[in-house]
Formats: sequence, C-alpha cells, structure tokens
Amino acid sequence: MVTCPLPVIGVVRTGRTSAETTPVQAALNRSERGTVEIFEQYAEGLGGLDGFDYAWLLTWLDRPDAPSDEAPALTQVPFLLRGQGRRMGIFATRGPRRVNPIGLSLVELHRVTGSSIEFAGVDLLDGTPVIDLKPYVTRFDSPGREPRCGWFDSVSLVDGVTPADLGRAGSAAEAAES
Amino acid sequence: MVTCPLPVIGVVRTGRTSAETTPVQAALNRSERGTVEIFEQYAEGLGGLDGFDYAWLLTWLDRPDAPSDEAPALTQVPFLLRGQGRRMGIFATRGPRRVNPIGLSLVELHRVTGSSIEFAGVDLLDGTPVIDLKPYVTRFDSPGREPRCGWFDSVSLVDGVTPADLGRAGSAAEAAES
Repeated sequence: MVTCPLPVIGVVRTGRTSAETTPVQAALNRSERGTVEIFEQYAEGLGGLDGFDYAWLLTWLDRPDAPSDEAPALTQVPFLLRGQGRRMGIFATRGPRRVNPIGLSLVELHRVTGSSIEFAGVDLLDGTPVIDLKPYVTRFDSPGREPRCGWFDSVSLVDGVTPADLGRAGSAAEAAES
Repeated sequence: MVTCPLPVIGVVRTGRTSAETTPVQAALNRSERGTVEIFEQYAEGLGGLDGFDYAWLLTWLDRPDAPSDEAPALTQVPFLLRGQGRRMGIFATRGPRRVNPIGLSLVELHRVTGSSIEFAGVDLLDGTPVIDLKPYVTRFDSPGREPRCGWFDSVSLVDGVTPADLGRAGSAAEAAES
C-alpha cells in the first residue's frame, strides 16, 4: 500500500499494474475504462458530479521507482524524451517523480452511482490513492487561445504510448516521466 | 503563516488579501498579474517552463474560513450558487473547503526567470503556498469535445466576480466556494 501524507478519499481501480506499460496520459488512452471507488464516508461529496462529462482526478503517485524519502532529481529525462535523452526541469514535465507526486488526470465520466465513478481515460495504476476530485469546467480550465506547449510541441504524442514503448530509462535519476 | 502538510515549493504573490473580494477563478480574472516565487532550492526544476504559455498552479488553500482541523461539510453552497442557496457535493465544486484544500489554477505565464514566475490570472491570496506546478499541455488537458459542465452551465460566469459580489454566505457550512 502506498504512503500518502494526506487524507485519501478513495482509490482508483484499473487493469494496470506496471508503470512501464501504462499509457503516460489519460488523454492518450481515452477508450480504456477504470473506476474510482470513493470511500463511503465521502460519498455524499459526489452529489451533482453526474452533470459533468469530465473531471480532474488528483492522485498521489508515490510509486513505483523511488523510496519516497529520496528527494526527486530537479531535472529528469521525461518518458517522451527518452529517445533523445533530453533533460527537463520537473516543473516543465508531467512526470510522477516530483517534490509532491500529485497526479492530474483528465477523465471522462461515464457513471456516477453511490460511491463509485466509472470513467474512461486510464493512466493510473490499480490501487492509486485519490486525494481530490474536481469537475472540469471549460470556462476555468481552457486557455483563451491556442497555447505554446514547450517541448511537447516537438514530440509525437501517440495514442496509448507507454514508457516501455519509448526505450529504457537511462538511470535512476532519469526514471519514469511523462 | 499557513500550515501545509506537504513540502511547499514556493509562494504566490498577489495584491489580494481577502478571499471575499478575490475573483473566484483565474480564468475569470485573466488580466490581473501575480508572481510565483519558487524557493531557491527548487529553482532548477523550472528549466524548460519558459516554452509554455500556460501552467497549472497547485496550491494549498488552508485559508481563510475554517480551522484546518475541522472537517469540511461534504455538501456546500458554492459562491456561484449563493443567490439560489443551492448545495452541491464538494467534489462537484471548485471551492476551497475540501477534504484536501488543493487549489488548481490555470495561469498564463509571462516571464520565467531564475526562481520567479510572472503570470496573469489571479484567484489566489497573497502568500498562498505552492505545492506543485505543471505545464499546460493542450493534448492532455482538453476534452475531445465540448463537455457538459453540470451546474456551471446554468450560472452566469462574469469576469472578475468575487464571493462578495454574490451575496453573503448563509452559514459557516455554506462558506466560500467557487
């Protein structure tokens, strides 16, 4: 079980158990389904969520590559730059090895019933702890224009791509990044 | 000073000191400028961020209305529904009184230099602790279609709107929500 310093509100259920073979982003794996099981004591907080098509899943990604008491390197080679071996500052990546390993996944909501949420868009391992859930609101969550997206603009973002597809990590410090 | 159970990577500097008169979302206040001061020991993590036009600012909103040891109500009246007095489950709102008071603000990056980030889009109080910073990536962060946005679709989202503009909170349990 993962150690999370925050109250956990639920758990993600997916068919994924290995980070290396899990797609790097929900949006690159829109068809795969998963479930969020919200703990019973928080289920009342889901009221109204069924009116939304998308939500932000905030998770605690305290797996799989490093002991959580080891500070992550401030520059790392993202998954998507493994081929080039290029390093980036962690705050210019979406990778899991961060000062606070918070995952931000945009998922499509399919069914919200009781304490369970069926969603599409899987980039999370089975058992990942959920720390927050927020509705996607177009007006709040989309830029007013087509933005520059840094180094992501120069890499190919292939549906379903996993770290394993992108070559081996060069070293522990260059571990799993999206 | 705010108590945050996670390592804090920096602090937000804005001209705002009262939640009631601070716009409820960055996207509804796109012209106002602020700064993120990343602590020196994390500055190297900003490398590459200057290539992005937008970023997600993840903050710890442990202010202002409730002692942090009091569990937030699971249904609350959001700021934007104060007029109607309608309650929503907290996971269907973007309000600050959550199990984990994590703020998610989409800000426009203007200048990234050393350990400082000038941005536009202010919905945060001066001094708010920053717990993570992620680049906005259109392919990851936008739904594949125009989504339903639940109760937000039936309220007017006026630029610059603040809680104070929306009427008084009915009770402590109905406190500040966006």
